[in-house]
Amino acid sequence: MDVASPPTGHGFDAGGPTLQEVGEAELLRRLTAIARRHGDDRRLVVGSGDDAAVWRPPGGAGIVLSQDAIVEGEDFRRSWIDPEAVGRRALAGAVSDLAAMGARPALCLVTLCAPGASRVDDLLAIQEGICAAASEAGCRVAGGDVSAIAGPLVIDVVVVGTVDPGRALRRDRGRPGDLLVVTGCLGGAAAGLRLLLDGRRRSVPAPAGAGAGATAEERWLARQLRPRARLGEGQALLRLGVACAGDLSDGLIVDVGRITDASGCGAEIWLESVPADPDIRTLLGDGWVAAALGGGEDFELVAAVAAERWDGLLARWPAGLEPLQVVGRLTPGTGLRLLDHRDGEEVPLPRVASRHFRQP
Amino acid sequence: MDVASPPTGHGFDAGGPTLQEVGEAELLRRLTAIARRHGDDRRLVVGSGDDAAVWRPPGGAGIVLSQDAIVEGEDFRRSWIDPEAVGRRALAGAVSDLAAMGARPALCLVTLCAPGASRVDDLLAIQEGICAAASEAGCRVAGGDVSAIAGPLVIDVVVVGTVDPGRALRRDRGRPGDLLVVTGCLGGAAAGLRLLLDGRRRSVPAPAGAGAGATAEERWLARQLRPRARLGEGQALLRLGVACAGDLSDGLIVDVGRITDASGCGAEIWLESVPADPDIRTLLGDGWVAAALGGGEDFELVAAVAAERWDGLLARWPAGLEPLQVVGRLTPGTGLRLLDHRDGEEVPLPRVASRHFRQP
Repeated sequence: MDVASPPTGHGFDAGGPTLQEVGEAELLRRLTAIARRHGDDRRLVVGSGDDAAVWRPPGGAGIVLSQDAIVEGEDFRRSWIDPEAVGRRALAGAVSDLAAMGARPALCLVTLCAPGASRVDDLLAIQEGICAAASEAGCRVAGGDVSAIAGPLVIDVVVVGTVDPGRALRRDRGRPGDLLVVTGCLGGAAAGLRLLLDGRRRSVPAPAGAGAGATAEERWLARQLRPRARLGEGQALLRLGVACAGDLSDGLIVDVGRITDASGCGAEIWLESVPADPDIRTLLGDGWVAAALGGGEDFELVAAVAAERWDGLLARWPAGLEPLQVVGRLTPGTGLRLLDHRDGEEVPLPRVASRHFRQP
Repeated sequence: MDVASPPTGHGFDAGGPTLQEVGEAELLRRLTAIARRHGDDRRLVVGSGDDAAVWRPPGGAGIVLSQDAIVEGEDFRRSWIDPEAVGRRALAGAVSDLAAMGARPALCLVTLCAPGASRVDDLLAIQEGICAAASEAGCRVAGGDVSAIAGPLVIDVVVVGTVDPGRALRRDRGRPGDLLVVTGCLGGAAAGLRLLLDGRRRSVPAPAGAGAGATAEERWLARQLRPRARLGEGQALLRLGVACAGDLSDGLIVDVGRITDASGCGAEIWLESVPADPDIRTLLGDGWVAAALGGGEDFELVAAVAAERWDGLLARWPAGLEPLQVVGRLTPGTGLRLLDHRDGEEVPLPRVASRHFRQP
């Protein structure tokens, strides 16, 4: 797997006319045509192509909205990933916020800012990735905007979903004594980023590369470059009576901090309980703690679950979803403490940065 | 009026800590605090600060969504405008799309991408401008995203509004024979841009500068730098039975072209009838035609009105709104023709670009 022959897609700069040659209006027309090809939705009364989209939500539904931008140089580099995968990644990051609310995706809008010298085929491939990932998440691309930029590529995705009236997973619903529960396994995305930053791996693995026969490195790259939002997990948490959750876009320490800030309490995390990706100690040595607790972009969920509900939740957790694991609990007071294990000794928190490119 | 002492706000780069020093997470907290200060909305069940916003729309309403980005160097330059006015301008451009649908604004989300060396106070001033303009338009800032960027400032605004079920001004509802009607007066924003590009004026006029005693130059600068969306006009068009309209974000020629493309017809525009800003011939000479027909950013509306409804529409047009003016009609066939006046001779269409910085 190297830059000359990426395993999927065609890489960036595959030739053909540039944005400057084709113009923004024509690009917008072609992006719209791709969005229309990806299925129809009778609730979308007016889709791409008008001044705005018009959507008829299910009666009484709560509308859930989130916006998430990825910026070249901050969130990805062109040498790491092909355009279709960039589009998928932008969509997954935005949809993860809907997962964290327990919402059902309905539609999305996308702004694409690209330099005039961008190849139009690359931009269309980004849109293909966005639309394919949106379809898989159950939502339609209903519009957006296009602009030239004398700078890096920016993909800003807005996702709109629905929840039943009065229901949503919220950050401010945690209570001292609640167990902190995460889905899946942490640190893989940070390990993948480390491989990319070290220049040891330079492209995106094929989707199959994340499957059962994948090596650890392929699995980590897939976590970093082809993340999946935990939509089913979020909806199951909400359905099974959980009130408080968030996604792990910035890592366990930062995202648990958001829950404790919003809920007005403190928290402790039990290091021994954190479900770290099994092989990251080999790659990262002692750095595995920072990766598992501070690495962003895993896009797993963290929930606060009343202790008396935990056994019932676990018993009713649907097969086929990422497993749940208790990693700590909310406490009275403020602040976050790391213990080596439940009821164990306090150990120092690893240093983490707010965005993954600026990790210590 | 000069760069050293801009008449409003403080200009960019007023000192203080940078984004890099403060961090994205802290910036997002401060932006959220500003949004919360700008009033409350009981329909916003979960506002800024969670993974996503949750909104309870009025029962049965159609939801109208649009996204509009402005990019430094493409849509504005820092030397032209202070940060608060940039925020207002970003919001106005997005809300104009709701105006063009006849929608009532409800909420918005904003992504702000800024270089690490940006002054935090500048970014907060942008948010103040966005929130103030949003309040005036009747909507709340309900969330968004923040990212560093090694490049120009990007402000991407998503606006969400409502319409009564089954109702909206659409581009695809024009019919041959319909009269083309515009609100207000055209070409002022293009004239303002010309002053700025020529270096004859270098800053934003005070809001009062657009009032009754304003000079022509102050009026044009205000059109370019402090545009206002025609929300009342769009809602009145819809209420009074008009079915087809769009906004003039890219100029009459481009935006009428969007209506004829969507409606499957042609159009003619009568030059003599175009309500050009009265003094632009003095500034622009023969260039006034390109400014009035091809200049974007006027953010007026263009509607297609069945000929037999025109007199009634005019008679019932509310006082206090921008006046309506017939400027042409939709025709069978395809393509856009410019006539010197109604039933007159065909004259050449001026050359126009899709975005205003790339005007011929």
